Amino acid sequence: MAIRKLLVANRGEIAVRIIRAARELGIATVQVYSAADKDMLAVKMADEAVNIGPPHAAKSYLNIEAILKAAADTGADAIHPGYGFLAENAGFADAVEAAGLVFVGPTGDQIRTMGDKAMARMAAIAAGVPCVPGSDGRIDSPEEARAVAARIGFPLMIKAAAGGGGRGIRIAADPEEFETLMAQASAEAKAAFGDGGLYVEKVIERARHIEVQVLADGEDAIHCYERECSLQRRRQKVWEEAPAATLPASVRERLCASAVALARAVKYRGAGTIEYLYDDASGEFYFIEMNTRIQVEHPVTEMITGIDLVREMIRIAGGARLAYRQSDVVAKGAAIEVRINAEDPAKSFQPGPGMITALTVPGGAGTRFDTMLYQGYTVPPFYDSLLGKLIVWDETRHGAIERLKRALGELEVKGLKTTKPLFARLADDPDVRAGNVHTRWLEPWLEHHQQELQEQEGTGS
Amino acid sequence: MAIRKLLVANRGEIAVRIIRAARELGIATVQVYSAADKDMLAVKMADEAVNIGPPHAAKSYLNIEAILKAAADTGADAIHPGYGFLAENAGFADAVEAAGLVFVGPTGDQIRTMGDKAMARMAAIAAGVPCVPGSDGRIDSPEEARAVAARIGFPLMIKAAAGGGGRGIRIAADPEEFETLMAQASAEAKAAFGDGGLYVEKVIERARHIEVQVLADGEDAIHCYERECSLQRRRQKVWEEAPAATLPASVRERLCASAVALARAVKYRGAGTIEYLYDDASGEFYFIEMNTRIQVEHPVTEMITGIDLVREMIRIAGGARLAYRQSDVVAKGAAIEVRINAEDPAKSFQPGPGMITALTVPGGAGTRFDTMLYQGYTVPPFYDSLLGKLIVWDETRHGAIERLKRALGELEVKGLKTTKPLFARLADDPDVRAGNVHTRWLEPWLEHHQQELQEQEGTGS
Repeated sequence: MAIRKLLVANRGEIAVRIIRAARELGIATVQVYSAADKDMLAVKMADEAVNIGPPHAAKSYLNIEAILKAAADTGADAIHPGYGFLAENAGFADAVEAAGLVFVGPTGDQIRTMGDKAMARMAAIAAGVPCVPGSDGRIDSPEEARAVAARIGFPLMIKAAAGGGGRGIRIAADPEEFETLMAQASAEAKAAFGDGGLYVEKVIERARHIEVQVLADGEDAIHCYERECSLQRRRQKVWEEAPAATLPASVRERLCASAVALARAVKYRGAGTIEYLYDDASGEFYFIEMNTRIQVEHPVTEMITGIDLVREMIRIAGGARLAYRQSDVVAKGAAIEVRINAEDPAKSFQPGPGMITALTVPGGAGTRFDTMLYQGYTVPPFYDSLLGKLIVWDETRHGAIERLKRALGELEVKGLKTTKPLFARLADDPDVRAGNVHTRWLEPWLEHHQQELQEQEGTGS
Repeated sequence: MAIRKLLVANRGEIAVRIIRAARELGIATVQVYSAADKDMLAVKMADEAVNIGPPHAAKSYLNIEAILKAAADTGADAIHPGYGFLAENAGFADAVEAAGLVFVGPTGDQIRTMGDKAMARMAAIAAGVPCVPGSDGRIDSPEEARAVAARIGFPLMIKAAAGGGGRGIRIAADPEEFETLMAQASAEAKAAFGDGGLYVEKVIERARHIEVQVLADGEDAIHCYERECSLQRRRQKVWEEAPAATLPASVRERLCASAVALARAVKYRGAGTIEYLYDDASGEFYFIEMNTRIQVEHPVTEMITGIDLVREMIRIAGGARLAYRQSDVVAKGAAIEVRINAEDPAKSFQPGPGMITALTVPGGAGTRFDTMLYQGYTVPPFYDSLLGKLIVWDETRHGAIERLKRALGELEVKGLKTTKPLFARLADDPDVRAGNVHTRWLEPWLEHHQQELQEQEGTGS
């Protein structure tokens, strides 16, 4: 069914992004907002806007009933969930379709399958996608543990089957330590969760985070190459690139093919991302999870392929077939995105909302700034701290890094502290320039450069 | 010689453009400015800035002595002339090189040759580039006139050899009219210029303006495909595209090859544009002139090829060889640029300087706005009216037009009247959408739509 009016069930920069795509498709837009967001840019840009509740997310952006009512009241025939909030809520996808509306994303069942880590792992294994070697479920005896360890090799991560949030995790470097830690972990897990069951997984040290963008229409699926997002702080990506600069071509080919195989296996529909850990040393990659939505870092893929991912996911949701064959998707050059957050890197990334007293957006060749900011806008304290994404493209990664520095120099966000000062430092770091990073590279770097970032503070952002 | 510090001998948006390219190359920048331009964006962005004189261009941006002194005083080792002002002044190029500095552009002799229309025509003919059929010089007798007319065909344009500014031009539709008009024109030319000499040229009716971007390093030359700039008002381009949407592939190939042949023939160095008239009906193209500088509309070529033309011309001026072989230059998608001028389309494009009280720059995928504006900036009344260039790219021309409309909707320049309202109308015009235009299409369209543009006025820009 062709979409005529799209409700945007999100806020911030992604709401702006969705409105732009809809407008270029000639689709009218309805922006929902919480009472805290009545002045946000997407409200100003959309054709209509509906207040769906108080600032508390559960009562507004997570309030399925209020969102469906807004759609009914405005005659919207489709809903785009963005990322976060209800984007990966299978029940929401089902409720949207039950209301006779189009959900811009996969089916509820696809979200359900890929959102459950155990089911997703099984789906990946079934599709021939490599997963982190492990026990494939709980271990019931010391003999079984020894057999798994012998198969996988050390170091090994021991996890409580009933655990979560990192509790009960131990890392064993050799067989002897393994026996001792297994016993300890089982006892502790039994005490903590009433269940001594364990499972083990190989530790991938110094891994890179590499993810593959897929587009699918329920019948066919293609990849749009990969992104590398190894620069993370507390598992939050802060700097993302496309392509993964140091990935050997043969690995890229296998990685992208495996992502397409998984998307095909589940008859995926829409835009999705399949995330992997990649081990430089062995050249092996391992499936982590699938994100069944558009991602924050999608613009780097748009910059290297020229494909408007948000537009394409709306088209597909409207019943169109994939507009691209795999051979149409050509990656060119290198793109980098950095996240400009309302956080102070000199003060342990303490978030700080406030009013934007001045804003200068960088411009010029290969430069894009996706933001919800405008001068005079007050960033509310209730939501995540993302203010904007500075995305640059150039023919080479070296050029993109130089362009990033130039564009950062033009970017001016006055009125609150942002993560901007961090990126000029990172752009000059020899490891970053060489692409010599992994998922645990940034945190020690931040500790090491804390004083520099504090001194830089005085010079303004 | 590698450039370390570049002086920008220009103003407005092109000065900003040059500073960005220099910065990405790690080159320091010196911005010269007239007293009227002390607050311009390029002055704020450059590493150093030097006041070179009063607002009057002859005393500042055309003041070779003051510019060379600014270079000497700041230790600049190169000068970029931008477009306009001294960009095609052979004496300036010579003076820069005589002062031991690098001129970012061709040699003085190349500017001299290509700047003289007769010499440029001879160079083009020598390189096998088709020129508008004509008498190749003055006609001395009625017999010669008849012979030329028989060779070229009608309609014919009769021009006074000593004329200029359109004076003495007559168009003859057939041989009989031709005889009469020749006699009249000769008598009038003799009276007006003391020289009754005439020459004739074929009239290319309903021609398109198509131009080819070339890059050359004095030894090798390549093309970066063509632009179409048929939408003109008083010979000023207002809407430019790359590629030329309706050009047959075989014509594109010949057109681009002929531009490369001409650039090679004169051993051209730097970025240049070879302009043609293209006659849809016959499929023939004719050389008009060569611009030996970067052009206003260069970004559409950057958008389809990914090549940073300004950066490349600086690299070449610094002694580097061309970074591209012809096979490296791949054109993808479609780009459109519209010129946002400080002119009121509802009042015959009357220019109106003023202070920018609010500025909202469009963003998102495939959107670029090259401007010298910032909030609080006062546009001075002394220079051309170009405020900025909105450039969009998409995979298809249709997509680019939709993106243009979306981006125009986001662009807000408050404080003065701009040409913005014109472009939303043009983007919806069936002829523009079909690419069914020529160089004399826009002026009657403007007359026809005058009232609409006036009514639109009230709705704000």
